[in-house]
Amino acid sequence: MRAVLLSGGVGGARFALGLVDALDPADVTVIGNVGDDLEVFGLHVSPDLDTLLYTLAGVADEERGWGRAGETWTALETAAALGADAWFQLGDRDLGLHLARAESLGRGQPLSTAIARLAAALGVETTILPATDDPLRTWLVTPAGDLAFQEWFVRRRHADDVDAVRFDGAETAAPAPGILEALEGADLILVGPSNPYVSIGPILAVEEIRRAIAERRVPAVAVSPLVGGRAVKGPADRMLARLAGGTGPRHVASCYDGLIDALVIDEADTPEGLAVRPIVTKTLMTDADARRRVAEAALEAAAALR
Amino acid sequence: MRAVLLSGGVGGARFALGLVDALDPADVTVIGNVGDDLEVFGLHVSPDLDTLLYTLAGVADEERGWGRAGETWTALETAAALGADAWFQLGDRDLGLHLARAESLGRGQPLSTAIARLAAALGVETTILPATDDPLRTWLVTPAGDLAFQEWFVRRRHADDVDAVRFDGAETAAPAPGILEALEGADLILVGPSNPYVSIGPILAVEEIRRAIAERRVPAVAVSPLVGGRAVKGPADRMLARLAGGTGPRHVASCYDGLIDALVIDEADTPEGLAVRPIVTKTLMTDADARRRVAEAALEAAAALR
Repeated sequence: MRAVLLSGGVGGARFALGLVDALDPADVTVIGNVGDDLEVFGLHVSPDLDTLLYTLAGVADEERGWGRAGETWTALETAAALGADAWFQLGDRDLGLHLARAESLGRGQPLSTAIARLAAALGVETTILPATDDPLRTWLVTPAGDLAFQEWFVRRRHADDVDAVRFDGAETAAPAPGILEALEGADLILVGPSNPYVSIGPILAVEEIRRAIAERRVPAVAVSPLVGGRAVKGPADRMLARLAGGTGPRHVASCYDGLIDALVIDEADTPEGLAVRPIVTKTLMTDADARRRVAEAALEAAAALR
Repeated sequence: MRAVLLSGGVGGARFALGLVDALDPADVTVIGNVGDDLEVFGLHVSPDLDTLLYTLAGVADEERGWGRAGETWTALETAAALGADAWFQLGDRDLGLHLARAESLGRGQPLSTAIARLAAALGVETTILPATDDPLRTWLVTPAGDLAFQEWFVRRRHADDVDAVRFDGAETAAPAPGILEALEGADLILVGPSNPYVSIGPILAVEEIRRAIAERRVPAVAVSPLVGGRAVKGPADRMLARLAGGTGPRHVASCYDGLIDALVIDEADTPEGLAVRPIVTKTLMTDADARRRVAEAALEAAAALR
């Protein structure tokens, strides 16, 4: 059973963890979002790919919800004491990963190769692929103007309403090597419980990925990121309300029109008006059992659709 | 009494510390070597300027002889565990400084501005100026081929004999802002006990700096880096033996032909054949008293020459 998962950061990574518990980790390929990648102090940071790496390697900080466990902050605190604008949190261990990636990229390796090296070093058996090796960056159109993703998300704490999302570089971005092959060879396609606009949107903005999924011959199942119409974390609910007109399952599914066959939703939500098959379960992934239950719900839905 | 000091790393920085003990720190300008600057993981590192900053700020690791006191190594160890080539030692605190500098340089500030910001943040009253803001890099011509400075010094532990030294970019390098003014307004010019070829050489390779010193109207005094014909640290003695034909005071002075009026030498050395005035003292700077004694010997020599 070979699965391809489209994933953003924390929510998608937790679902990925449930998935590799239910399946052979080596049979799972995760396509990660790079729309919120950024340069911090000249170092390339891939927040969502790094969250996937840390989570699947079992070194993520579960309590804080991002970054590495056992993290220290000496470098960033020193930089701040020396006058640097330390707006983006970089722990010392995290920085070590950024340095290792900088070395790869500095040698001219594409991001996908850098991530593969890091995954191997972290003992991650699952294949983690950036959606693209080309520059693709998420911008938010807001009443305050167009904002780069991290400017909006971190610096302004996603307080600005979003009128539209655009992906600079998407028109010319090619899927990273291995993505089309993974989609072609997959027995099912999954979309993690990530923000449809800013986590999954940038992946689907790569035209060849979107087309491969639209033309799939296997089931595709998404997991809603909402519980009772509210985002577990982040601005997905506010964005859905403003951009899709509501926070029900059908509003989530509308983001994946033609791309999914079923949607896993929480017991607290009503599948009213949902055009794809609903699978109802408890979707909050508070522990390993919960993660595996959500993954199995998605896998069963796919099996029923086959 | 306004003094300008030409300095490399550790030896020059210790002498600078003695000098700012003997003089008003604000009356001292240190011109630092940038020939051994490098990019590590995409971050600009200025080893000699950083040693000057740390030493004059009182945060240098005296025992190790380089880097910051109380250093930790989490980021580099993590990078190494992730497969990075951690050949160049970067502590977490040190990395913090490189991040802060990367921010300045990323904003288009010249290196001299970045260093001024860091010096101010570290509470250093002495002006520290890079010899130039332009790229100037030291290369060693060796039997094994041409080697970039850090490749030779760190990776190959300066084991290769040096047949010649060259400074890429020197022809077009301009003195950093403030250097010619400092030399013009100085009451004396000092050359620290640094390696004449690879620490002071890159500074003097900036033609306008060399000319300003050659045309000086004030005394110029150098401090020999050798004690009993041997380098306290590093390859200065081997280089002098091969490139200048010996390791006596006159061989050191030959590196500064026309640029100095006196040479401070150790009691263990003989000023035989020395064309400039010898000043004999104990030059080993083992503690604050010793540093101040060497600085005062140089200052007295300059006073006698005036």
